[in-house]
Amino acid sequence: MIRFTCDYSEGAHPEILRRLTESNYEQEPGYGEDAFCTSAKAKIREATQCPNASVFFLVGGTQTNLTVIDALLPHYAAVISVTSGHIAVHEAGAIELCGHKVICLPEQQGKLTAQTLTEYLTRFYQDDTWSHMAIPGMVYISYPTEWGTIYTKEELTALHSVCKTYDLPLFVDGARLGYGLSAPTADLTLGELAQLCDVFSIGGTKVGALCGEAVVFPQGNAPQHFFSIVKQHGALLAKGRLLGIQFDTLFTDDLYFRISQHAVACAMQLKALFAAHSISFYIDSPTNQQFPLLTAQQVAQLEKNVAFEIWEETADHVFLTRFATSWATPTEHIELLGKFLR
Amino acid sequence: MIRFTCDYSEGAHPEILRRLTESNYEQEPGYGEDAFCTSAKAKIREATQCPNASVFFLVGGTQTNLTVIDALLPHYAAVISVTSGHIAVHEAGAIELCGHKVICLPEQQGKLTAQTLTEYLTRFYQDDTWSHMAIPGMVYISYPTEWGTIYTKEELTALHSVCKTYDLPLFVDGARLGYGLSAPTADLTLGELAQLCDVFSIGGTKVGALCGEAVVFPQGNAPQHFFSIVKQHGALLAKGRLLGIQFDTLFTDDLYFRISQHAVACAMQLKALFAAHSISFYIDSPTNQQFPLLTAQQVAQLEKNVAFEIWEETADHVFLTRFATSWATPTEHIELLGKFLR
Amino acid sequence: MIRFTCDYSEGAHPEILRRLTESNYEQEPGYGEDAFCTSAKAKIREATQCPNASVFFLVGGTQTNLTVIDALLPHYAAVISVTSGHIAVHEAGAIELCGHKVICLPEQQGKLTAQTLTEYLTRFYQDDTWSHMAIPGMVYISYPTEWGTIYTKEELTALHSVCKTYDLPLFVDGARLGYGLSAPTADLTLGELAQLCDVFSIGGTKVGALCGEAVVFPQGNAPQHFFSIVKQHGALLAKGRLLGIQFDTLFTDDLYFRISQHAVACAMQLKALFAAHSISFYIDSPTNQQFPLLTAQQVAQLEKNVAFEIWEETADHVFLTRFATSWATPTEHIELLGKFLR
Amino acid sequence: MIRFTCDYSEGAHPEILRRLTESNYEQEPGYGEDAFCTSAKAKIREATQCPNASVFFLVGGTQTNLTVIDALLPHYAAVISVTSGHIAVHEAGAIELCGHKVICLPEQQGKLTAQTLTEYLTRFYQDDTWSHMAIPGMVYISYPTEWGTIYTKEELTALHSVCKTYDLPLFVDGARLGYGLSAPTADLTLGELAQLCDVFSIGGTKVGALCGEAVVFPQGNAPQHFFSIVKQHGALLAKGRLLGIQFDTLFTDDLYFRISQHAVACAMQLKALFAAHSISFYIDSPTNQQFPLLTAQQVAQLEKNVAFEIWEETADHVFLTRFATSWATPTEHIELLGKFLR
Repeated sequence: MIRFTCDYSEGAHPEILRRLTESNYEQEPGYGEDAFCTSAKAKIREATQCPNASVFFLVGGTQTNLTVIDALLPHYAAVISVTSGHIAVHEAGAIELCGHKVICLPEQQGKLTAQTLTEYLTRFYQDDTWSHMAIPGMVYISYPTEWGTIYTKEELTALHSVCKTYDLPLFVDGARLGYGLSAPTADLTLGELAQLCDVFSIGGTKVGALCGEAVVFPQGNAPQHFFSIVKQHGALLAKGRLLGIQFDTLFTDDLYFRISQHAVACAMQLKALFAAHSISFYIDSPTNQQFPLLTAQQVAQLEKNVAFEIWEETADHVFLTRFATSWATPTEHIELLGKFLR
Repeated sequence: MIRFTCDYSEGAHPEILRRLTESNYEQEPGYGEDAFCTSAKAKIREATQCPNASVFFLVGGTQTNLTVIDALLPHYAAVISVTSGHIAVHEAGAIELCGHKVICLPEQQGKLTAQTLTEYLTRFYQDDTWSHMAIPGMVYISYPTEWGTIYTKEELTALHSVCKTYDLPLFVDGARLGYGLSAPTADLTLGELAQLCDVFSIGGTKVGALCGEAVVFPQGNAPQHFFSIVKQHGALLAKGRLLGIQFDTLFTDDLYFRISQHAVACAMQLKALFAAHSISFYIDSPTNQQFPLLTAQQVAQLEKNVAFEIWEETADHVFLTRFATSWATPTEHIELLGKFLR
Repeated sequence: MIRFTCDYSEGAHPEILRRLTESNYEQEPGYGEDAFCTSAKAKIREATQCPNASVFFLVGGTQTNLTVIDALLPHYAAVISVTSGHIAVHEAGAIELCGHKVICLPEQQGKLTAQTLTEYLTRFYQDDTWSHMAIPGMVYISYPTEWGTIYTKEELTALHSVCKTYDLPLFVDGARLGYGLSAPTADLTLGELAQLCDVFSIGGTKVGALCGEAVVFPQGNAPQHFFSIVKQHGALLAKGRLLGIQFDTLFTDDLYFRISQHAVACAMQLKALFAAHSISFYIDSPTNQQFPLLTAQQVAQLEKNVAFEIWEETADHVFLTRFATSWATPTEHIELLGKFLR
Repeated sequence: MIRFTCDYSEGAHPEILRRLTESNYEQEPGYGEDAFCTSAKAKIREATQCPNASVFFLVGGTQTNLTVIDALLPHYAAVISVTSGHIAVHEAGAIELCGHKVICLPEQQGKLTAQTLTEYLTRFYQDDTWSHMAIPGMVYISYPTEWGTIYTKEELTALHSVCKTYDLPLFVDGARLGYGLSAPTADLTLGELAQLCDVFSIGGTKVGALCGEAVVFPQGNAPQHFFSIVKQHGALLAKGRLLGIQFDTLFTDDLYFRISQHAVACAMQLKALFAAHSISFYIDSPTNQQFPLLTAQQVAQLEKNVAFEIWEETADHVFLTRFATSWATPTEHIELLGKFLR
């Protein structure tokens, strides 16, 4: 059985394990004040070309989203997301638990467009009763989106511009950031992305780490007392070194991008394989997640040897499936998949 | 420089790193449904002699406390703690962020006595205005306490009995559980402790793991939808294997207890060393944290070679300090400390 | 200028003012323990034919909704509403502030159908990832709805039945309850409605009182410590007598229903007037709110003498307006409106 | 039976009822945008000598406290209060429900001194672990305090000065403000008090109104979107006129102060009566609440004819009681009390 169910099926990149082992007995202070975190932060500042960035290391994705959003929003305010946004669907109501409504706007290919956002905000403030409604306080997007798609530089620039007009911080959830920036159609660098938002995360969990998400405030614009806010949300790791070592490793010699490119290359091969069998896709994703539309027969045949996710059975008995590659996907698995498809 | 500042200065027990490395490429489902978590849970059920226990793996201590407390309390209710309780002091208001007051009761040697609890509850319900006050909904203690002390079986039995009378779940924070159960004066086994509370945690972070706390509901009495509650609080690890492997290792061949005993043995040696120099203690702790009272001169002399924490300068210019040993403390460090004390 | 902007433009029914004045110097205990509240509760128990009902008096509508919903839901759970539900749109995010997601389902004529609810719940629990999503914990509807429509006995029976199947409490927001029960097409009595839900409110603010909403748990099924929950949400009035006197008056000699019938009779006349001028309606409302679709010219003409609300300009330049009658609407105003329409 | 149990036993000042009745059929917009609120706000701006003040009308005391505190605090921060503070004891955990810890500092005669506050803040920021603790974000006091005592101008000036140094907004809960400012020992005017804090409330409920608390931001310094915050906390009254009319009446011809003076005069008579019987007091209160220490025999004798509150039986079998006068206290009741004391 070969698995394409998700991008967190394995442990960590071996170089991470090596460095964890090597440094194991070095005594360091806790809570992110260790030398590894310091080094990792410096490397992230360099990689993002943000010399003044504030960088924090948190453990998981939902945790990162809820902590950042709760920190950025005034207590009364709501966060805007597309309908398929992770915070709107798959975080068990975590944002609402923090007191904030998630305002869902329609999406295009999983993305929030500047036009949709403008129209919503215009209409909102034109409504006489707006002060009786949940007031939008920030915008959340993910790069890549839940559907694997990515914003172009032009799209993100336009969106950020609307956010600035309305004084709404823009947060880019980068749980799979590496896979987005490594997409063949990506026209954004990490440095450019950092200029086009107010805060973003660099996902480690799905890109080679055991756990860990780096939160980057590109202009050193972390909210006051963000450290305490992280602690208060249960997101502060006592052994911060575990995160420091991992991000230091990922941002040494471009490892983060090298392994991201591998995953995307695998995904493109996988995509070509399906296409070669005249299988179409729910959406045209340029990143590590692919969404082939399979017949019941194709599903049955593949399931004998391949694990993948079935997201939905559509009205006409087609199955919307997801296949995810990762930093760890063996190239042989793609070849095997080709065999099983025949 | 040798360090006694805390019990989380190093990485993880080498056996944990070995097993992380060994299993790295095994593909497993996420979110705690992997084979390692399953195995670890079984071992914990055995070690706690609770065949029906529900076991969950969370990442950190504050996270564990806030998740368990928020899950157990009705939304309107408050949690009772002693004044020095971790949730009352060093969790940055995390419990209040979840909506719950922490009711602080006076402590004896860091402990909540059955008598103190009874008196408080009696008085509370005698007050005509009690329904205008925050209603106590559960009791939180830690074993060992913030002052390193431990409850006797008699004390815990009495406390649990009061809790049952008032229908208040009792939660034992075991962030340093191993060090408590391994104390020379401990008269409780893990199995007995499990019978004397409604939920407890087994700390990994401070006892040999990179991170991780096991939450045990001894009678399978986890609140409904506890999995989703964990997710909602940002406490669900995508790569649950990281926690599963660590706890599986710690509960194989009694590793958890063997390394706890080492830490306590080191602490007892350290205690004897101080005593031999006529240095007294703020409190008589039988566990891995020791609280010597040092003069300014002693502090100055030690600080040249030894790192430790100064908690407070008392009125008469004595310094209340903390020295912590751990699973990783080299026995040579104790010997060196002896030298530096002279 | 005559006003149809809302149903809370005037003070209170004169009988209420008379009784407030008459009783002014009687000394009574606070917090709802006064004789007026006791009497009012007894009358409500009788009017609802629920001899065991628990009745509480709160001050306002949003307050009532947030207090009841927060009291009924486990902290982790979400409330289901239709998209136009008051809690989903016009309560400024109050439910989310309490920690709960509002799950919006599509509506039919402002109503939630049993079928829509069943389909949602079926799909929810069929989704493999449901435990990562906000878990539905109760259902909220209003009677009448935001669009003035009302549930038939059959519809409410079916909806309640689905709720029971899934163990979801059903809360009926009755901010305009009197106007719903007095609709010409209403086939429900107050007593029947009380049997078809788990909790409902009886709106005073919009039906003759200065303020006040009665919350009724028909089977005495108030959540434990509901009094303290009310207090904790800032919803407990020190001078509970203000609410007791008002509800006692409203439920003496059927006043609540008599004044509701007046409002609905006025609305039906108003509806007939518009229809007589070939003006159509956005929706066919049998209650005190009417939603005529007016041209720009009609709006301009009416606005000279009549105040009403413009809710939206539709795509084809028609204005969706709202005209509300109330217990206080003078019948002359309807006649005048007829003149101004010509 | 004559009652001194509290200051909210009766309805409202008759002038309020007269004006409610007189204005009953005037049609006005809702939510505080009516002409009565506008007039009342102007009068309060004049009475407080704060021409730029933002004034809001809320319904009840706990509601006011929770709304103001939640609006002023960053979400992560805590509010400082004395141990006996209303928010710390008798609001059922409302502040914590909003997510904020109440930090309790020791009191002197019910008051928070500048020295106590300074010492706390100095120690807090000297503690190496302060960023792991709940961060103080504002200061709450009440005038008069829960023990009826009042701050002198010097005390309040000193306290406000410490608050400014630490950038902590100072909130004065004035639920009984009139009774404080009318105390024989009061050396503060309303205008002066307004300069010595960042926000304060003017209590109506206990000083002649049916309900209602005015919130005053003296320098027009209301938090952004405070209207929506009020709505979100369920504290916005649809018929804002009810509050507008009451405060407009109270601030016409000094009514608020005239009726406050009556209550205090009654209290001073009552105090003299007890003293004349050699009865001592728990505390020397110059306002409308008096706390005589009675023997069991005295309690028994009085209870036949007089209602009052017993707060506590002290160790030596003395009863700490509370007698409250109000705007409505008949002078004959004081005379009668004199008889019953004999």
